[in-house]
Amino acid sequence: MPSPTQSIAYAHQNHARYLAELQELVRIPSISTLSEHKPDIQRCADWVAGQLRGMGFAGVAIMPTAGHPVVYGEWLNAPGKPTVLVYGHYDVQPVDPLNEWKAGPFEAVVRGDDLFARGASDMKGQVHAFLKALEAMLKHGELAVNVKVLVEGEEEIGSPSLGAFIAAHKALLKCDVVLNADSGILKPDLPSLIYGLRGLAYFELWVHTASQDLHSGTFGGTIHNPAQALCELIAGMHDAEGRITLPGYYDRVRTLSADERAELARLPHNDAEWLTMTGAPALWGEAGYTTVERFGARPTLEVNGLYSGFIGEGSKTVLPAKAMAKLSMRLVPDQDHEEVERQLRAYLAAHAPAGVRWELKALAGGPAALVERDSAYMRAAVAALESTWGVRPVFERAGGSVPIVSLLQKQLGVDSILMGFGMRDDNIHGPNEKQHLPNYYRGIEAFIRFFANLAE
Amino acid sequence: MPSPTQSIAYAHQNHARYLAELQELVRIPSISTLSEHKPDIQRCADWVAGQLRGMGFAGVAIMPTAGHPVVYGEWLNAPGKPTVLVYGHYDVQPVDPLNEWKAGPFEAVVRGDDLFARGASDMKGQVHAFLKALEAMLKHGELAVNVKVLVEGEEEIGSPSLGAFIAAHKALLKCDVVLNADSGILKPDLPSLIYGLRGLAYFELWVHTASQDLHSGTFGGTIHNPAQALCELIAGMHDAEGRITLPGYYDRVRTLSADERAELARLPHNDAEWLTMTGAPALWGEAGYTTVERFGARPTLEVNGLYSGFIGEGSKTVLPAKAMAKLSMRLVPDQDHEEVERQLRAYLAAHAPAGVRWELKALAGGPAALVERDSAYMRAAVAALESTWGVRPVFERAGGSVPIVSLLQKQLGVDSILMGFGMRDDNIHGPNEKQHLPNYYRGIEAFIRFFANLAE
Repeated sequence: MPSPTQSIAYAHQNHARYLAELQELVRIPSISTLSEHKPDIQRCADWVAGQLRGMGFAGVAIMPTAGHPVVYGEWLNAPGKPTVLVYGHYDVQPVDPLNEWKAGPFEAVVRGDDLFARGASDMKGQVHAFLKALEAMLKHGELAVNVKVLVEGEEEIGSPSLGAFIAAHKALLKCDVVLNADSGILKPDLPSLIYGLRGLAYFELWVHTASQDLHSGTFGGTIHNPAQALCELIAGMHDAEGRITLPGYYDRVRTLSADERAELARLPHNDAEWLTMTGAPALWGEAGYTTVERFGARPTLEVNGLYSGFIGEGSKTVLPAKAMAKLSMRLVPDQDHEEVERQLRAYLAAHAPAGVRWELKALAGGPAALVERDSAYMRAAVAALESTWGVRPVFERAGGSVPIVSLLQKQLGVDSILMGFGMRDDNIHGPNEKQHLPNYYRGIEAFIRFFANLAE
Repeated sequence: MPSPTQSIAYAHQNHARYLAELQELVRIPSISTLSEHKPDIQRCADWVAGQLRGMGFAGVAIMPTAGHPVVYGEWLNAPGKPTVLVYGHYDVQPVDPLNEWKAGPFEAVVRGDDLFARGASDMKGQVHAFLKALEAMLKHGELAVNVKVLVEGEEEIGSPSLGAFIAAHKALLKCDVVLNADSGILKPDLPSLIYGLRGLAYFELWVHTASQDLHSGTFGGTIHNPAQALCELIAGMHDAEGRITLPGYYDRVRTLSADERAELARLPHNDAEWLTMTGAPALWGEAGYTTVERFGARPTLEVNGLYSGFIGEGSKTVLPAKAMAKLSMRLVPDQDHEEVERQLRAYLAAHAPAGVRWELKALAGGPAALVERDSAYMRAAVAALESTWGVRPVFERAGGSVPIVSLLQKQLGVDSILMGFGMRDDNIHGPNEKQHLPNYYRGIEAFIRFFANLAE
C-alpha cells in the first residue's frame, strides 16, 4: 500500500498548531438540544465550512434542514478512484452537572496528555483530525481518492433532520463508502474497529395526578403520588434477572452465535478495570451475559433523567402534581424503535394505576447496525491503524448508537467504516470530558493512511 | 360570656385597612428554606415586631436562634386572669413551580373574595388576624387576659431551632394555654376545630453508583442505574394495599376506636368534591380506611421530590451517577420520628442492591398530637366560632403537622387550641395560594371573642 510520506511528516511537525486550532473549535458551545445555543451552532457550522474552503474543497455550503444546518463540501479530482463520504457532527451534549467540572466545559484546558472540554472527544477532536488529514494531503498533492464531507449539527439530539436531508440529496451524497469518525479505540496502545452499533429509542414519560401541587399533609395518602406511581412503573420495567419486561421486547433480538460470543470474549476487557473506570461498587446487568455482551450485543433500558416536586435545598412538604422520567433503550438487530414505542405504550397501559394519567413523547429513535468485517474498505482501515500503531486492531461491537450508520446503509446502500480516536473513559456526555491527545495526533496520521489506502 | 362590643364594631369598620396591611405583609418573600431570602426573613420579623410595639406590647424583641429569629412580645396587665401564648410563624414555603402561578406569588392580587399570595393562608393571614384582634381590643380597653405572642421563622422547614428556644425560655413562655393559629376551617360557612395533628419525618435519600455521569450507550446495562435503583426502593415502600412496608412501621400506631371512626364519619366530607378540588382522576390510599381516616388518622409515606440525570429540554443519553428523593412520612400517635428513621434505614439496608451506595439525611421530624376536646379553653374557642358564624363548629383530625403543638405539650405542659381560618383548597405549599377574605375578616372577630371568653 502507498505511503503518503510528506503528509505524515507534515502532520508530525504541526502538533502545536493543531492543538491550538482544536481548542478554538471546542470553545464554541454548540449544544444542539438547548435553543439558547442556536447562535453557537451557526458559529460552529461557519467554522467547519471555513476549514473546508481553506483547504480547497469545492461546493462548500451550510445547508439548511428543518433543524440545525449541515456543512457540506467536496473534492472530486480523482477520476476512477472511489468516493468516500466522511461523516461527522459539530454539535455537542449539554454540560450539566456544571459544578462537577474541574475547569469550565468550554475553557479547553490541557492537563498532562489530555484536552478537557465538552465535545473534545465527542466528536470535535475526531472531526478536526480528519480535517487536518485532508488538509495535509491536499497541501502535498497526496490525496488520491474523491472525498465528500458532511458534518451535521443534530447528532446529540438523535439526528432528527438527517434522514430527510439525505433523501433530498441522494445524488450529491452518492459514494462508495462512508468514513464515520464518531468512534473510538479501546486503549491508547490498542486500536480497534467497531463493526456493530446499537440503535436507540428515547422517550419522555410524564405521570399526572392532581391539577396542581398540593400540601402533602392535607392530601397525601388520599390520592396517588405521581412520583411514587412513576417509580412503580419504572421499577416494573426490569425483572429480578435484569431482563426488560416490556411485552415482546426480546422477540426480534438476534441470538448471539457461539462464534460471536467466543470472539467478543477475546476482547481485552477486564471487569475490575471497568469498575475502577466507572467508580461503581459492583457490576449489574442481564443475567447470563458477560459485560462485553451486555453493552455491545444486548438491548437495555435506562433512566436518563427523573424529576418531580421539590428538588431544592431543604424540605418542602409538597404532594407533587406530576412526575417525569427520561427513558431510553439501546436496541440491537433486528429491533425497531417504533415497535419498541408500541411495546412501552402497551406496558404503560397495562400497569399504570387508575389514579394517574400518563403521557409519552418519543424524542429520538434509530435502528441498530452491523457492518461487513471483510470488505476492501475495512481492510484499508485495518492497515491504516496497524501502520500507525504497529499493532493489529481488534474488532468490537459498541454499546452506543450512531443512527447515521443504518440510515446511510438504508438510503445510500453503503457501509460505514467506524474509525475515530475517542476512548471509553473520555467521559463523553458527562463532566470533565477529555480527548487523549496522543490518540488525536495518531488519529490524523491514521486518517491520512486510510485515505491513501483507499486509492489502491 | 362577655361581648367585646367596641372591638367587634371597630373590626367591622376596618376591612379595607386590614387588607392593605395584609398585602404589605405577604409581599415580603420570607422563604425560610432558601438562604438567599435571609434578608426577607429579617424584614418580616421586623414587620411583626413593629406591629406588636405599635399596639402597646411590652418586651418586644427579635430573639436570635441557631436559625431564623423568633419575634416575641407580651401584654401582662390582667392579674389573676389566664395567660395565653399565641403562636404563629412568619416564614413561607418556596414558590416553585413559578410558571404555574397566575400572578406573581408576592404580588398579592385580589380576585373576587380571595387574596392570592404565597403565605396568604399559611399563615400570614392568620398571624395578621390575631394581631388585628389584639390591636382592636387594646385600643378599646377590652383585652382582659394576659397575652404572650411568639412568631417564629422556621415552621416551613420543620422548626429546627424552636425546641432549643423554648427550653431556654421556659419562664418567659410560661402560660395556661396556647392559641395556635396555624389552622383552618372546613368551609366558609362551617367553622371547625382541629383536635388531632399528624407528626412528620422528612428525609433526603441519595443513591450513588458511578463516580460521575457516564454515556448510557457505553456503560448502560453493565452497572446499576441509580435512578432505576431509587425507583425500585421507592416502589417497594408500599404494598399492593397501599400499606407502608418499612419494618415495624405500624407497631406504635394507635388503633382507631369504633367511636372515633363514627365521629370522623360525621364530618361533612364528600369524595366526589375531594376529587374535584384536587383534580385527581381517582382516590388512592390504604385499603380499609375512608378518605377522612386516611388523611387524618393514618400514617403515610410520600415522595415530595425526585431528581436524577438530565431533566432539561430534549434528550441526553446519560447514565446518571446519582439519584435523589425527598421522602416524608406523616405520623400518628404514638409513632416517633427517630424510630421511623431507624425503620427507613433498616428497609434501605435490606433492599438496596449491591451495585449502589445510599445515603440518608433526616431533614425534619416531630411527633403527632391529640388535644383534649372538653377543656375550658376549647369551650371558649367553640363559643367564639359559634357566635361569629352562627353555626356550631365541628371537630376534626387534620392531616398536616404542627410540631409545635406536641413540643409545647411536652416542654411547657400546656395544650394548644388550634384555631385559624385557612381552608383545604387554599393551595398552601402549591401555586396560587390564596386566603378567602371573608374567613379572614370573620377570623379577626372570632379571635376577639376567644380572648374575651378566656377572661370569664
